[in-house]
Amino acid sequence: MKRRLVNGSDTGGIALDDRGLAYGDGLFETMAATDGRVHHLELHLARLEEGCRRLGIPMPSPGLLEEECGRVLEGLGNGTVKLIVTRGPGPRSYRPPAEPRVTRIVTSAAPRARGDVLAPIAVRLCQTRLGQNPLLAGLKHLNRLEQVMACAEWDDPAVAEGLMLSMDGRMVCATAANVFVVIGGRLVTPAIRDCGVSGVMRQVVLMAASELGIPVGVEDLRPEILDTADEVFVTNAVAGIRPVGELVGARKWTVGEITRALVKSTTGVDA
Amino acid sequence: MKRRLVNGSDTGGIALDDRGLAYGDGLFETMAATDGRVHHLELHLARLEEGCRRLGIPMPSPGLLEEECGRVLEGLGNGTVKLIVTRGPGPRSYRPPAEPRVTRIVTSAAPRARGDVLAPIAVRLCQTRLGQNPLLAGLKHLNRLEQVMACAEWDDPAVAEGLMLSMDGRMVCATAANVFVVIGGRLVTPAIRDCGVSGVMRQVVLMAASELGIPVGVEDLRPEILDTADEVFVTNAVAGIRPVGELVGARKWTVGEITRALVKSTTGVDA
Repeated sequence: MKRRLVNGSDTGGIALDDRGLAYGDGLFETMAATDGRVHHLELHLARLEEGCRRLGIPMPSPGLLEEECGRVLEGLGNGTVKLIVTRGPGPRSYRPPAEPRVTRIVTSAAPRARGDVLAPIAVRLCQTRLGQNPLLAGLKHLNRLEQVMACAEWDDPAVAEGLMLSMDGRMVCATAANVFVVIGGRLVTPAIRDCGVSGVMRQVVLMAASELGIPVGVEDLRPEILDTADEVFVTNAVAGIRPVGELVGARKWTVGEITRALVKSTTGVDA
Repeated sequence: MKRRLVNGSDTGGIALDDRGLAYGDGLFETMAATDGRVHHLELHLARLEEGCRRLGIPMPSPGLLEEECGRVLEGLGNGTVKLIVTRGPGPRSYRPPAEPRVTRIVTSAAPRARGDVLAPIAVRLCQTRLGQNPLLAGLKHLNRLEQVMACAEWDDPAVAEGLMLSMDGRMVCATAANVFVVIGGRLVTPAIRDCGVSGVMRQVVLMAASELGIPVGVEDLRPEILDTADEVFVTNAVAGIRPVGELVGARKWTVGEITRALVKSTTGVDA
């Protein structure tokens, strides 16, 4: 069983001058896997490719990445796979090397215990905000200090996620998830235009809603929308759809019909 | 000669789950050294300590860091020392571990060839802007994709630096330097309040100007100030003060009296 590969080798390490470490100059994907197969691998690789294109990092061969994901899952079957792609080693300078030797890191882990997929979670509003820069928005890049600082705000294990606002006060996402609200029968998620990550599960949910005929909006949202939202859920690629049952100190929700329909549509679990 | 130390060991490597790599969850200092001694070590360590405090990373012992800087300089004498402190390894989660095992990486390099300290450089205005977040402003943290992207904008070796604006249009700094202008006999540098790095050399110059009786301002600046500035220079800890002789396509300057006085005061070089 190989649980870690660096550039295809299970004994490789990270160079001290790797730009992923020096500058966060790279991208990552965290993916769920069942029976040795990564869920939505094409969508993860498409996002990675888009990130590579925007950052000017040569995209590794998708076939090679798929094969390496398979290797770290051998003997494990179910679990999560994390893929990091950096611009590789280089001399001390922000300037990207003319011919980068990209670093690929692929690791796997056993699945985390997960209870009832419809068990609602509690969330809070974070003080830490997201700086706005369209250049980096949407990408799952390695510059994640804002998310780290947001998660450092609380340690109550009963609170599963924190919602984050942009510097100009829009509700954008959770620390490690996208957020959706249902209001008046319409499913709405924040536009990812100058901060936040364009989640793969967000994309899956938007497609599923379309197929189910649920009216969908992708637009700027103020946090006050939570005052009147009928249903709220968050999404990420590993945990899927998690219904939000409580905004701590403010509101509670039961799991609604649109959330149930989307869980069923995306997991097959009859909710 | 030991040119690299990881947690004090010259054979140590970086764990694949180090948060410095995963999230840019750490800080760094790049320092000049002469005769085995780091310039302004106290100021570098003070900034590092402030960064650790703000990010909630336990600050390594300053004495230990000083000793490790000395070790990587053995037999080298002059050069640069780079110090990285990360929150260390941890499970896959943005949430900081309750008891982080901080990673220290200390490396040295021979000095880069440096010509006349007063040879003016050409700079350009970068398109890439700095996202604004007071939480991280001033710190020399490992989330540096904006600087990387700014440096990727040009490859003309005749252009030594790029000036960067904040998202709201203030001139804040260069990609790897702070910026000063002299206007009407007054030395002014941008306030670092919601983006940019508070450079050690910036601090040294501000102190030197005070001692020389030069009126100093630290305030918000628009890039249009370059239209009327009498002198412009950039600073960083390795290259010191570099006079700006040209804003490409826009203006030229000669090296002025206040720049000369500050170079002399900070280096002893009679300019």
